Amino acid sequence: MEESNEKKIILVAVDESEESMYALSWCLHNLLSSTAAQPTNTKLVLLYVKPPPPVYSSLDATGYLFGCDVIATMEKYTKDIATSVMSKAERIYKDFHTNNIQVDKIVGSGEAKDVICVAADKLRADILVMGSHDYGFFKRALLGSVSEHCAKHVKCPVVVIKRPKTTAQI
Amino acid sequence: MEESNEKKIILVAVDESEESMYALSWCLHNLLSSTAAQPTNTKLVLLYVKPPPPVYSSLDATGYLFGCDVIATMEKYTKDIATSVMSKAERIYKDFHTNNIQVDKIVGSGEAKDVICVAADKLRADILVMGSHDYGFFKRALLGSVSEHCAKHVKCPVVVIKRPKTTAQI
Repeated sequence: MEESNEKKIILVAVDESEESMYALSWCLHNLLSSTAAQPTNTKLVLLYVKPPPPVYSSLDATGYLFGCDVIATMEKYTKDIATSVMSKAERIYKDFHTNNIQVDKIVGSGEAKDVICVAADKLRADILVMGSHDYGFFKRALLGSVSEHCAKHVKCPVVVIKRPKTTAQI
Repeated sequence: MEESNEKKIILVAVDESEESMYALSWCLHNLLSSTAAQPTNTKLVLLYVKPPPPVYSSLDATGYLFGCDVIATMEKYTKDIATSVMSKAERIYKDFHTNNIQVDKIVGSGEAKDVICVAADKLRADILVMGSHDYGFFKRALLGSVSEHCAKHVKCPVVVIKRPKTTAQI
Protein backbone atom coordinates (compact mmCIF):
# COMPACT_ATOMS: atom_id res chain seq x y z
CA MET A 1 0.00 0.00 0.00
CA GLU A 2 2.76 2.44 0.84
CA GLU A 3 6.50 2.33 0.90
CA SER A 4 7.71 2.29 4.47
CA ASN A 5 11.02 3.85 3.40
CA GLU A 6 9.37 6.81 1.76
CA LYS A 7 8.42 9.82 3.79
CA LYS A 8 4.70 10.08 4.38
CA ILE A 9 3.48 13.53 3.46
CA ILE A 10 0.48 14.93 5.26
CA LEU A 11 -0.78 18.12 3.66
CA VAL A 12 -2.96 20.29 5.87
CA ALA A 13 -4.80 23.20 4.29
CA VAL A 14 -4.93 26.00 6.83
CA ASP A 15 -6.73 29.32 6.78
CA GLU A 16 -7.89 31.94 9.27
CA SER A 17 -10.85 29.84 10.39
CA GLU A 18 -11.15 27.93 13.65
CA GLU A 19 -12.28 24.95 11.57
CA SER A 20 -8.90 24.62 9.88
CA MET A 21 -7.04 24.90 13.18
CA TYR A 22 -9.26 22.20 14.62
CA ALA A 23 -8.45 20.08 11.56
CA LEU A 24 -4.72 20.56 12.16
CA SER A 25 -5.13 19.63 15.79
CA TRP A 26 -7.18 16.54 14.86
CA CYS A 27 -4.53 15.54 12.35
CA LEU A 28 -1.75 15.82 14.95
CA HIS A 29 -3.68 13.65 17.38
CA ASN A 30 -4.99 11.06 14.95
CA LEU A 31 -2.57 10.82 12.07
CA LEU A 32 0.79 11.80 13.47
CA SER A 33 0.68 9.82 16.68
CA SER A 34 0.85 6.72 14.51
CA THR A 35 4.40 7.64 13.63
CA ALA A 36 5.57 8.57 17.12
CA ALA A 37 7.77 5.51 17.15
CA GLN A 38 9.30 6.44 13.80
CA PRO A 39 8.77 10.19 13.67
CA THR A 40 11.18 10.95 10.85
CA ASN A 41 8.92 9.04 8.50
CA THR A 42 6.36 11.81 8.31
CA LYS A 43 6.47 15.27 6.85
CA LEU A 44 3.75 17.73 7.73
CA VAL A 45 3.11 20.39 5.11
CA LEU A 46 0.97 23.38 6.01
CA LEU A 47 -0.55 25.17 3.06
CA TYR A 48 -2.17 28.56 3.24
CA VAL A 49 -3.71 29.96 0.09
CA LYS A 50 -4.08 33.71 -0.10
CA PRO A 51 -6.46 35.20 -2.63
CA PRO A 52 -4.94 36.21 -5.96
CA PRO A 53 -3.63 39.81 -6.14
CA PRO A 54 -6.14 42.30 -7.53
CA VAL A 55 -5.66 43.04 -11.19
CA TYR A 56 -8.15 45.87 -11.54
CA SER A 57 -5.67 48.72 -11.95
CA SER A 58 -4.13 47.33 -15.11
CA LEU A 59 -6.89 45.22 -16.63
CA ASP A 60 -10.23 46.46 -15.54
CA ALA A 61 -12.19 49.56 -16.45
CA THR A 62 -12.87 50.09 -12.77
CA GLY A 63 -9.14 50.23 -12.13
CA TYR A 64 -9.30 53.83 -10.89
CA LEU A 65 -10.91 52.54 -7.72
CA PHE A 66 -7.69 50.89 -6.67
CA GLY A 67 -4.55 52.94 -6.72
CA CYS A 68 -1.10 51.37 -6.37
CA ASP A 69 -0.97 52.29 -2.68
CA VAL A 70 -4.34 50.64 -2.03
CA ILE A 71 -3.21 47.49 -3.82
CA ALA A 72 0.04 47.48 -1.85
CA THR A 73 -1.94 47.83 1.38
CA MET A 74 -4.24 44.97 0.37
CA GLU A 75 -1.27 42.79 -0.49
CA LYS A 76 0.36 43.60 2.83
CA TYR A 77 -2.91 42.75 4.53
CA THR A 78 -3.18 39.31 2.91
CA LYS A 79 0.51 38.72 3.68
CA ASP A 80 -0.13 39.61 7.32
CA ILE A 81 -3.03 37.17 7.42
CA ALA A 82 -0.78 34.44 6.00
CA THR A 83 1.82 35.13 8.69
CA SER A 84 -0.84 35.16 11.39
CA VAL A 85 -2.35 31.87 10.21
CA MET A 86 1.05 30.19 10.08
CA SER A 87 1.92 31.47 13.58
CA LYS A 88 -1.35 30.16 14.93
CA ALA A 89 -0.70 26.79 13.27
CA GLU A 90 2.83 26.78 14.66
CA ARG A 91 1.56 27.28 18.19
CA ILE A 92 -0.73 24.28 17.73
CA TYR A 93 1.88 21.88 16.41
CA LYS A 94 4.55 23.07 18.87
CA ASP A 95 2.24 21.96 21.67
CA PHE A 96 2.31 18.53 20.10
CA HIS A 97 5.39 16.30 20.00
CA THR A 98 6.46 17.36 16.54
CA ASN A 99 10.11 17.96 17.39
CA ASN A 100 11.20 15.13 15.19
CA ILE A 101 8.70 15.69 12.48
CA GLN A 102 9.61 17.89 9.57
CA VAL A 103 7.13 20.73 9.16
CA ASP A 104 7.10 22.71 5.93
CA LYS A 105 5.03 25.81 5.36
CA ILE A 106 3.81 26.87 1.97
CA VAL A 107 1.89 29.99 1.05
CA GLY A 108 0.12 29.77 -2.27
CA SER A 109 -1.92 32.32 -4.14
CA GLY A 110 -5.06 31.87 -6.19
CA GLU A 111 -8.37 30.06 -5.98
CA ALA A 112 -8.02 27.95 -2.80
CA LYS A 113 -9.63 24.79 -4.17
CA ASP A 114 -7.44 24.76 -7.28
CA VAL A 115 -4.20 25.60 -5.46
CA ILE A 116 -4.83 22.89 -2.87
CA CYS A 117 -5.50 20.26 -5.55
CA VAL A 118 -2.37 21.22 -7.50
CA ALA A 119 -0.24 21.27 -4.34
CA ALA A 120 -1.50 17.86 -3.21
CA ASP A 121 -0.58 16.34 -6.55
CA LYS A 122 2.75 18.15 -6.93
CA LEU A 123 3.87 17.26 -3.41
CA ARG A 124 2.60 13.70 -3.90
CA ALA A 125 0.77 14.05 -0.61
CA ASP A 126 -0.29 10.83 1.06
CA ILE A 127 -3.15 12.48 2.90
CA LEU A 128 -4.87 15.83 2.51
CA VAL A 129 -6.47 17.18 5.67
CA MET A 130 -9.05 19.96 5.52
CA GLY A 131 -11.47 21.62 7.86
CA SER A 132 -15.06 21.77 6.76
CA HIS A 133 -16.87 25.08 7.02
CA ASP A 134 -20.44 24.44 7.96
CA TYR A 135 -21.88 27.00 5.58
CA GLY A 136 -25.62 27.23 5.10
CA PHE A 137 -27.32 26.43 1.84
CA PHE A 138 -26.96 29.85 0.20
CA LYS A 139 -23.36 30.47 1.15
CA ARG A 140 -22.50 26.97 -0.03
CA ALA A 141 -24.34 27.56 -3.30
CA LEU A 142 -22.45 30.80 -3.85
CA LEU A 143 -19.01 29.80 -2.68
CA GLY A 144 -19.07 26.10 -3.39
CA SER A 145 -17.36 23.73 -1.03
CA VAL A 146 -13.57 23.67 -1.16
CA SER A 147 -13.40 20.32 0.63
CA GLU A 148 -16.01 18.79 -1.70
CA HIS A 149 -14.07 19.98 -4.75
CA CYS A 150 -10.79 18.64 -3.39
CA ALA A 151 -12.28 15.28 -2.40
CA LYS A 152 -13.47 14.98 -5.98
CA HIS A 153 -10.27 16.02 -7.73
CA VAL A 154 -7.33 15.08 -5.52
CA LYS A 155 -5.80 11.64 -5.97
CA CYS A 156 -4.83 10.98 -2.35
CA PRO A 157 -7.18 10.27 0.57
CA VAL A 158 -8.88 13.39 1.80
CA VAL A 159 -9.85 13.86 5.43
CA VAL A 160 -12.70 16.32 5.88
CA ILE A 161 -13.02 17.44 9.47
CA LYS A 162 -15.92 19.26 11.04
CA ARG A 163 -15.41 21.10 14.29
CA PRO A 164 -17.88 19.71 16.84
CA LYS A 165 -20.84 22.00 17.41
CA THR A 166 -20.24 22.04 21.18
CA THR A 167 -16.86 23.75 20.86
CA ALA A 168 -17.80 25.72 17.76
CA GLN A 169 -20.32 27.72 19.69
CA ILE A 170 -17.94 28.90 22.39
CA MET B 1 -10.00 16.88 21.82
CA GLU B 2 -10.96 13.35 22.69
CA GLU B 3 -11.32 11.34 25.88
CA SER B 4 -8.44 8.91 26.17
CA ASN B 5 -10.59 6.61 28.32
CA GLU B 6 -13.34 6.37 25.76
CA LYS B 7 -13.18 3.86 22.98
CA LYS B 8 -12.38 5.39 19.64
CA ILE B 9 -14.89 4.18 17.07
CA ILE B 10 -13.82 3.94 13.47
CA LEU B 11 -16.73 3.27 11.15
CA VAL B 12 -15.82 1.89 7.75
CA ALA B 13 -18.51 1.72 5.09
CA VAL B 14 -17.89 -1.38 3.01
CA ASP B 15 -19.52 -2.61 -0.16
CA GLU B 16 -18.73 -5.01 -2.97
CA SER B 17 -16.33 -2.56 -4.64
CA GLU B 18 -12.58 -2.73 -4.66
CA GLU B 19 -12.57 0.93 -3.62
CA SER B 20 -14.16 0.18 -0.28
CA MET B 21 -11.75 -2.69 0.39
CA TYR B 22 -8.86 -0.38 -0.39
CA ALA B 23 -10.36 2.15 2.02
CA LEU B 24 -10.52 -0.51 4.76
CA SER B 25 -6.94 -1.48 4.10
CA TRP B 26 -5.82 2.18 4.16
CA CYS B 27 -7.65 2.67 7.43
CA LEU B 28 -5.93 -0.32 9.03
CA HIS B 29 -2.53 0.97 7.97
CA ASN B 30 -3.04 4.64 8.74
CA LEU B 31 -5.57 4.95 11.51
CA LEU B 32 -5.29 1.77 13.52
CA SER B 33 -1.52 1.57 13.73
CA SER B 34 -1.70 4.64 15.94
CA THR B 35 -3.33 2.55 18.62
CA ALA B 36 -1.06 -0.46 18.34
CA ALA B 37 0.38 0.38 21.76
CA GLN B 38 -3.08 0.60 23.30
CA PRO B 39 -5.14 -1.59 21.03
CA THR B 40 -8.18 -1.95 23.24
CA ASN B 41 -8.86 1.74 22.80
CA THR B 42 -10.22 1.35 19.30
CA LYS B 43 -13.32 -0.31 17.94
CA LEU B 44 -13.60 -0.94 14.24
CA VAL B 45 -17.16 -1.08 12.93
CA LEU B 46 -17.77 -2.38 9.43
CA LEU B 47 -21.05 -1.29 7.90
CA TYR B 48 -22.55 -2.81 4.80
CA VAL B 49 -25.76 -1.31 3.49
CA LYS B 50 -27.90 -3.54 1.32
CA PRO B 51 -30.57 -1.99 -0.87
CA PRO B 52 -34.06 -1.80 0.61
CA PRO B 53 -36.27 -4.84 -0.07
CA PRO B 54 -38.48 -4.45 -3.14
CA VAL B 55 -42.03 -3.34 -2.34
CA TYR B 56 -43.51 -3.71 -5.82
CA SER B 57 -45.70 -6.74 -5.09
CA SER B 58 -47.79 -4.97 -2.48
CA LEU B 59 -47.60 -1.31 -3.46
CA ASP B 60 -46.96 -0.99 -7.15
CA ALA B 61 -49.11 -1.61 -10.17
CA THR B 62 -46.20 -3.51 -11.72
CA GLY B 63 -46.26 -5.94 -8.82
CA TYR B 64 -47.06 -8.88 -11.06
CA LEU B 65 -43.49 -8.71 -12.31
CA PHE B 66 -42.17 -9.83 -8.97
CA GLY B 67 -43.72 -12.86 -7.40
CA CYS B 68 -42.95 -13.84 -3.80
CA ASP B 69 -40.38 -16.39 -4.93
CA VAL B 70 -38.58 -13.81 -7.04
CA ILE B 71 -38.51 -11.39 -4.12
CA ALA B 72 -37.23 -14.12 -1.82
CA THR B 73 -34.49 -14.91 -4.34
CA MET B 74 -33.53 -11.26 -4.60
CA GLU B 75 -33.41 -10.96 -0.83
CA LYS B 76 -31.25 -14.06 -0.60
CA TYR B 77 -29.01 -12.59 -3.28
CA THR B 78 -28.48 -9.31 -1.38
CA LYS B 79 -27.93 -11.30 1.82
CA ASP B 80 -25.31 -13.39 0.03
CA ILE B 81 -23.60 -10.23 -1.17
CA ALA B 82 -23.54 -8.88 2.39
CA THR B 83 -21.95 -12.11 3.62
CA SER B 84 -19.45 -12.07 0.78
CA VAL B 85 -18.49 -8.42 1.45
CA MET B 86 -18.04 -9.05 5.17
CA SER B 87 -15.92 -12.17 4.49
CA LYS B 88 -13.73 -10.19 2.12
CA ALA B 89 -13.37 -7.43 4.72
CA GLU B 90 -12.57 -10.03 7.37
CA ARG B 91 -9.76 -11.47 5.27
CA ILE B 92 -8.28 -7.98 4.98
CA TYR B 93 -8.36 -7.11 8.66
CA LYS B 94 -7.26 -10.59 9.73
CA ASP B 95 -4.08 -9.99 7.76
CA PHE B 96 -3.52 -6.96 9.91
CA HIS B 97 -2.72 -7.05 13.63
CA THR B 98 -6.31 -6.61 14.76
CA ASN B 99 -6.31 -9.41 17.31
CA ASN B 100 -6.76 -6.99 20.16
CA ILE B 101 -9.06 -4.64 18.37
CA GLN B 102 -12.77 -5.17 18.65
CA VAL B 103 -14.37 -5.51 15.22
CA ASP B 104 -18.14 -5.21 14.90
CA LYS B 105 -20.07 -5.91 11.72
CA ILE B 106 -23.34 -4.24 10.93
CA VAL B 107 -25.58 -4.85 7.94
CA GLY B 108 -28.05 -2.07 7.30
CA SER B 109 -30.76 -1.73 4.72
CA GLY B 110 -31.90 1.31 2.76
CA GLU B 111 -30.39 4.21 0.89
CA ALA B 112 -26.65 3.84 1.55
CA LYS B 113 -25.91 7.52 2.13
CA ASP B 114 -28.74 7.91 4.65
CA VAL B 115 -28.02 4.68 6.51
CA ILE B 116 -24.32 5.55 6.80
CA CYS B 117 -25.08 9.02 8.17
CA VAL B 118 -27.56 7.67 10.72
CA ALA B 119 -25.17 4.89 11.76
CA ALA B 120 -22.24 7.31 12.19
CA ASP B 121 -24.32 9.51 14.46
CA LYS B 122 -25.97 6.68 16.40
CA LEU B 123 -22.67 4.92 17.00
CA ARG B 124 -21.04 8.24 17.86
CA ALA B 125 -18.27 7.33 15.44
CA ASP B 126 -15.02 9.26 15.81
CA ILE B 127 -14.08 8.75 12.19
CA LEU B 128 -16.03 7.61 9.15
CA VAL B 129 -13.94 5.98 6.44
CA MET B 130 -15.28 5.58 2.92
CA GLY B 131 -13.98 4.59 -0.45
CA SER B 132 -14.60 7.00 -3.29
CA HIS B 133 -15.98 5.62 -6.51
CA ASP B 134 -14.48 7.50 -9.37
CA TYR B 135 -17.67 7.78 -11.35
CA GLY B 136 -17.78 9.89 -14.46
CA PHE B 137 -19.91 12.99 -14.76
CA PHE B 138 -23.13 11.31 -15.84
CA LYS B 139 -23.07 8.46 -13.35
CA ARG B 140 -22.26 10.93 -10.59
CA ALA B 141 -25.10 13.19 -11.72
CA LEU B 142 -27.52 10.27 -11.69
CA LEU B 143 -26.38 8.49 -8.55
CA GLY B 144 -24.98 11.36 -6.56
CA SER B 145 -21.90 10.84 -4.47
CA VAL B 146 -22.39 8.89 -1.27
CA SER B 147 -19.12 10.16 0.18
CA GLU B 148 -19.95 13.77 -0.71
CA HIS B 149 -23.33 13.46 0.97
CA CYS B 150 -21.83 11.90 4.09
CA ALA B 151 -19.03 14.47 4.35
CA LYS B 152 -21.75 17.13 4.29
CA HIS B 153 -24.10 15.56 6.82
CA VAL B 154 -22.06 13.50 9.24
CA LYS B 155 -20.74 15.22 12.36
CA CYS B 156 -17.47 13.32 12.70
CA PRO B 157 -14.39 13.60 10.47
CA VAL B 158 -14.88 11.79 7.18
CA VAL B 159 -11.99 10.17 5.34
CA VAL B 160 -12.66 9.83 1.62
CA ILE B 161 -10.21 7.45 0.00
CA LYS B 162 -9.58 6.99 -3.67
CA ARG B 163 -7.92 3.86 -4.90
CA PRO B 164 -4.77 4.85 -6.80
CA LYS B 165 -5.20 4.62 -10.57
CA THR B 166 -2.15 2.38 -10.88
CA THR B 167 -3.73 -0.45 -8.90
CA ALA B 168 -7.29 0.37 -9.94
CA GLN B 169 -6.54 -0.59 -13.49
CA ILE B 170 -5.23 -4.04 -12.71
